[in-house]
Amino acid sequence: MEAIREKDAPVVVGLDPNLSFIPGQLMKEAREEAAAEGRTLSGMECAAEAIWRFNKGVIDAVCDIVPAVKPQSAMYEQFGIPGLMTYEKTVRYAQEKGLIVIADVKRGDIGSTSAAYAAAHLGRTVIEGVAEKSFDADFATVNPYLGTDGIKPFVDACNACDKGIFVLVKTSNPSSGEFQDVRTEDGRPVYELVAEKVREWGSLSMDGRYSNVGAVVGATYPAQGEALRRLMPEIFILAPGYGAQGASAADLLHFFDENGEGCIVNSSRGILAAWQKEAYAAYGEKDWAGAARAAAQAMIEDLRGALRDRTQR
Amino acid sequence: MEAIREKDAPVVVGLDPNLSFIPGQLMKEAREEAAAEGRTLSGMECAAEAIWRFNKGVIDAVCDIVPAVKPQSAMYEQFGIPGLMTYEKTVRYAQEKGLIVIADVKRGDIGSTSAAYAAAHLGRTVIEGVAEKSFDADFATVNPYLGTDGIKPFVDACNACDKGIFVLVKTSNPSSGEFQDVRTEDGRPVYELVAEKVREWGSLSMDGRYSNVGAVVGATYPAQGEALRRLMPEIFILAPGYGAQGASAADLLHFFDENGEGCIVNSSRGILAAWQKEAYAAYGEKDWAGAARAAAQAMIEDLRGALRDRTQR
Repeated sequence: MEAIREKDAPVVVGLDPNLSFIPGQLMKEAREEAAAEGRTLSGMECAAEAIWRFNKGVIDAVCDIVPAVKPQSAMYEQFGIPGLMTYEKTVRYAQEKGLIVIADVKRGDIGSTSAAYAAAHLGRTVIEGVAEKSFDADFATVNPYLGTDGIKPFVDACNACDKGIFVLVKTSNPSSGEFQDVRTEDGRPVYELVAEKVREWGSLSMDGRYSNVGAVVGATYPAQGEALRRLMPEIFILAPGYGAQGASAADLLHFFDENGEGCIVNSSRGILAAWQKEAYAAYGEKDWAGAARAAAQAMIEDLRGALRDRTQR
Repeated sequence: MEAIREKDAPVVVGLDPNLSFIPGQLMKEAREEAAAEGRTLSGMECAAEAIWRFNKGVIDAVCDIVPAVKPQSAMYEQFGIPGLMTYEKTVRYAQEKGLIVIADVKRGDIGSTSAAYAAAHLGRTVIEGVAEKSFDADFATVNPYLGTDGIKPFVDACNACDKGIFVLVKTSNPSSGEFQDVRTEDGRPVYELVAEKVREWGSLSMDGRYSNVGAVVGATYPAQGEALRRLMPEIFILAPGYGAQGASAADLLHFFDENGEGCIVNSSRGILAAWQKEAYAAYGEKDWAGAARAAAQAMIEDLRGALRDRTQR
């Protein structure tokens, strides 16, 4: 919340670097620089190096205007060990640049296994009595399907290491309703039951106005977002779905509390792939980072404007 | 199914190497051998190397009697990049030894992100037009909370690369009922709705008697297992929860079809940590691998006996 206030920007840039929006130039540079050092990169290594250069460029371009980035682990795992090395470097670099890192890992298991995921992404791994950092992000996203057994170890890591989680409550995708919206015996949708549990888990890790346990609520479902904001007054919301997935600033107004706080909005493709869009064509492929900054700035202005208008009404 | 028949053993050994059951000797050996080569291992590297030695020993000890192993990704991620290198080596080594590898990753996301997880764990990652293998297991476990958008990309990978998935339906842990057992408007529990969807997804990837899309159903819930076996006649079941989590062979009988097929039962701690148990104390810490083999053999006999008794009744 402090970082959001400081930059007056409830915005997180999703670092989901699909190869389709990595400028070809970066692959070429990675290969040529390695060749100049007498090394030949595998396809995986080359992609991972290009993504690292891309992420670094995006982080440099946005780190003074946004409070946080959200790397999506799938986009790194698909490139094997080289991809995961890029993931790790990206987390470290973003933190060095003063950004908060939300690891979008959507992990969820039970007992000692969930504890291991929590150690991997937020906490510490104890080896022969010594607590060591692993990927060490600031927040992680977590899947609730396995219930309290799956979440509690993450809450423990939040308390031990001053970290946070966002539990999937109502996701932004078209089919999210298949299970999440199912009406239960008492007429409430499943996501409301999950929201209730999130409050319960959240009460175990309060940290000022909001809990360290937050919720993912898709910006693409404004009515549900408004209901969930009311149902979970002390739960911070991470809202994906702005931009490329179709949600606008107006859709998001009721995800915020009466002070215009309590929510951070993610955009990934809309920022990373801005250079490929008509609106930012002037930047060209060479200035993909400039396009990303401009798109992030436009998103910030859009949200600021909508929140200001709401206050004035 | 062929591998299960060949070994007459519907058993998968879970490779969840918690440091608490890695013999201390392995850490020591890893450190000393590195020192002899003039290298100093970090804590993470040392743990990862000890786990690799442990896994290799377990695989060597059981590869002629069981058809499959199930490494649990959390247990490797907690040791960072060195841990994930051990994960990758373990998958490769098990496959070299003729074992089927079930990647217990419980991933789940949407659209292109789920496609990236599917590429990472089962399929191929396309880099500049070339399809490359990443972790390349044979099966993966998948979380259904995000609905069809999250599962379909995995089904596509199953079809493209002749792989399989197991979707979490009813998990083995104590709190699995919090959301999975919730009664819906029409009186059915949520896990039955998930089972229905699993059949629908499964119909897109049939492969003989069973689909490439399977289900995770905890052995700790025998009544639900029996109901789910009936509700999903063409869905292969992966059943965790035997042994350390409390389920017995008798609990599992109705997870199998009329031919005694259609289910594979996992045990992790019960086999990996056998050397720490009273019953296998004769093996001692030095012969942890022998203890693991004996525990796997006992589990196989237990299941064979129960299935034989059932046929004779």
